Amino acid sequence: MITLVKNAKIVTQNDGREILEGDILIDGNEIVEVKPGINEKAERIIDAENRIAIPGLVNGHTHIPMGLLRGYGEDLPLQEWLEKKIWPTEPKLTREGIRKGSLLGMAESIRSGVTSFNEMYVYHVDETAKAAEQIGIRIEIPRAMFDLVPGRERDDELAACETFISGWKGKSPLIVPTVSCHAPYTCSEELMIKAKETAQREHLKFHIHISETRKEMLDIVKNKGKYPFEYMDSIGLLDENSIYAHAGWVTKREIALAGKKKAGIVHCPISNLKLATGGICPITEYDAAGANVALGTDGAASNNSLNMFETMKMAALLQKHHYWKADVIPTQKIFDFATINGAKALGINAGSIEKGKLADIVLLDKGANMVPEHDIIANLVYSAGPQNVTDVIIDGKLVMRGRKIQTIDEEKLLQDLSGFQIPKV
Amino acid sequence: MITLVKNAKIVTQNDGREILEGDILIDGNEIVEVKPGINEKAERIIDAENRIAIPGLVNGHTHIPMGLLRGYGEDLPLQEWLEKKIWPTEPKLTREGIRKGSLLGMAESIRSGVTSFNEMYVYHVDETAKAAEQIGIRIEIPRAMFDLVPGRERDDELAACETFISGWKGKSPLIVPTVSCHAPYTCSEELMIKAKETAQREHLKFHIHISETRKEMLDIVKNKGKYPFEYMDSIGLLDENSIYAHAGWVTKREIALAGKKKAGIVHCPISNLKLATGGICPITEYDAAGANVALGTDGAASNNSLNMFETMKMAALLQKHHYWKADVIPTQKIFDFATINGAKALGINAGSIEKGKLADIVLLDKGANMVPEHDIIANLVYSAGPQNVTDVIIDGKLVMRGRKIQTIDEEKLLQDLSGFQIPKV
Repeated sequence: MITLVKNAKIVTQNDGREILEGDILIDGNEIVEVKPGINEKAERIIDAENRIAIPGLVNGHTHIPMGLLRGYGEDLPLQEWLEKKIWPTEPKLTREGIRKGSLLGMAESIRSGVTSFNEMYVYHVDETAKAAEQIGIRIEIPRAMFDLVPGRERDDELAACETFISGWKGKSPLIVPTVSCHAPYTCSEELMIKAKETAQREHLKFHIHISETRKEMLDIVKNKGKYPFEYMDSIGLLDENSIYAHAGWVTKREIALAGKKKAGIVHCPISNLKLATGGICPITEYDAAGANVALGTDGAASNNSLNMFETMKMAALLQKHHYWKADVIPTQKIFDFATINGAKALGINAGSIEKGKLADIVLLDKGANMVPEHDIIANLVYSAGPQNVTDVIIDGKLVMRGRKIQTIDEEKLLQDLSGFQIPKV
Repeated sequence: MITLVKNAKIVTQNDGREILEGDILIDGNEIVEVKPGINEKAERIIDAENRIAIPGLVNGHTHIPMGLLRGYGEDLPLQEWLEKKIWPTEPKLTREGIRKGSLLGMAESIRSGVTSFNEMYVYHVDETAKAAEQIGIRIEIPRAMFDLVPGRERDDELAACETFISGWKGKSPLIVPTVSCHAPYTCSEELMIKAKETAQREHLKFHIHISETRKEMLDIVKNKGKYPFEYMDSIGLLDENSIYAHAGWVTKREIALAGKKKAGIVHCPISNLKLATGGICPITEYDAAGANVALGTDGAASNNSLNMFETMKMAALLQKHHYWKADVIPTQKIFDFATINGAKALGINAGSIEKGKLADIVLLDKGANMVPEHDIIANLVYSAGPQNVTDVIIDGKLVMRGRKIQTIDEEKLLQDLSGFQIPKV
């Protein structure tokens, strides 16, 4: 199908970071032309007069079904929240619950201008992949593994990971399997090494939590005699195909090392603050060192939303606050982190509106919070929100039009889930 | 006019913090009944099935026309931003610009669930008051004063303040004049004392910035031999009718003093971070000490939005981060700060949905970001946003219905302002 988006203000995110008034021509799932006055015949024309077109935002780290636990166990200390609320509940979530919870998180993501995300979850992950196909959102998804907890065996975990990969690799343009270990404190060295080998053999990304809390960082120092990134490097896990979520409790030496290896670093500012981890991911320094910095929401249980506009704003504000320096990082960089860097971390050919890129595009209105337009990038990073998202194109398909998601019965889904009860533990 | 809101989930914010399923009966500008199954005849019935009714949010500190400067001078250090961009520009804003900029900020506020705000500005403030009457939002507004800058004389400032008060006091149910000095570092002691005397004589609130930056705090210590709140107290400015914005750089002794005097403290977390002031307003401690804590957005030039949902979330997150303690402050407290405490700071009979209160009420839908509903207060503080605000009632009038502002031609306003040019300095 040929789609033509007409008369938008296009924030291209191309190398020159050009902002154009013009049209976007899409053939199938690919952007084939971006310029003013395209007169090609199209089967679908979207009038974007007075609207802004941006590359779809990339959520670099989330646990999408956890929206089911949004607001569950608030106002508790972190360990009590995890041990008494989250961990006992998750294995009890049903296949049907995970399916609906995944659709819920995806609907919220789409409404927040997100066209792709980097998932990490353990339970019924097939349902999440199927939900993504159904709603039409692009995801990278593993069957995540951990073996240092009771009831989890390394070989079973690796087998489940392999099964998931063989079930999904190359099966859908939207679903790319990944390999994921939960964290260095929940996974044996053997599991992590084998997992990374699998990822390399299958040419897939490797995704892991690291240095989210001070305690886990210090435990690794104590047990391994190395700081976490140095430990990761020593066992072959630190390269440009590895994506590290959080990475807030780090030394300058580790930042330099992650930069040198061009690792993917996903900062999840809201979750870090909500869980009071105390660490601020030094994205300004990672970026300067050469790491590929992206942004994520983390799961909605610890956020409690999946709003990447909010995450961009929070990421920028926290850097300013952390360094006591209002100009510590350019606004454009923050927008890059949420678009082109996110796409690069996930290894997808998106993140900018350019010829040859995948057609993952979001249209925004210019509501009262987006006027005047002295600095459109600042408006996107600091002022925009889900209220401005009108249309979402993913892989060339119009997944949301005029604020209505086209691919699922969202109203029925929300009705089903509004009274969702936490399973008895 | 009798208005009946039917079948809402009502977050009352009454003393018991009850959440009811039921109806709200409004006679004129007053709530006259809140309970299930009201069958009173009403001229207007609002079906709020599947929606949440909350007391309108109170923005405790803003400079509403500064939305005109949203995104102007981004990525600059604070002093350069102020001295090269903001301060030279503001006096050049025209009366017409201030009028439209005020309507813009008010439209954005209403869309963010704000029904009243505490304004502080110097230029063409009559236009802001008239704009509030036109759009139908409740405001407290001064002609703010400062005399320690070239071209400003104390007597002229006081005269302008008095003229504004006599022009507006008792003239409109929506507009309450206040007395405001900009800050202790821009105002002489004589001006501040006289200003507070005026406020006391007229039974009005007194509104001032304090301890926003470390430098201004240290300058006051150097010049006055006292910490800012101690200085304010020594000249009679610290009481329950004074509203202090920012108050981030403070000693424990000052917190105790502000608490003892029951001062109003307005935390503006986003502006503080954006300007990298370095100080975090210790609202948890102020609240424990007995001060009346409220929340504000500050102006959209340093925010860059007027979104009180975002401000609630940020305020909660920053306390958790600041103290490394996820349970440092209950979520309910944060919602109180933005509703009942805000109303108390402004001295308005609102902030809760109860018999006898002013009918300032906001209806929210339960979109994908508001489901499930394990904890409705957490959903309001951490998940809700302008995308959920459907209807806004202020002073009994339906100012926004079905996401359309009823009182102004918003589309035309946005069109007029979308190309707004900064006046040449």
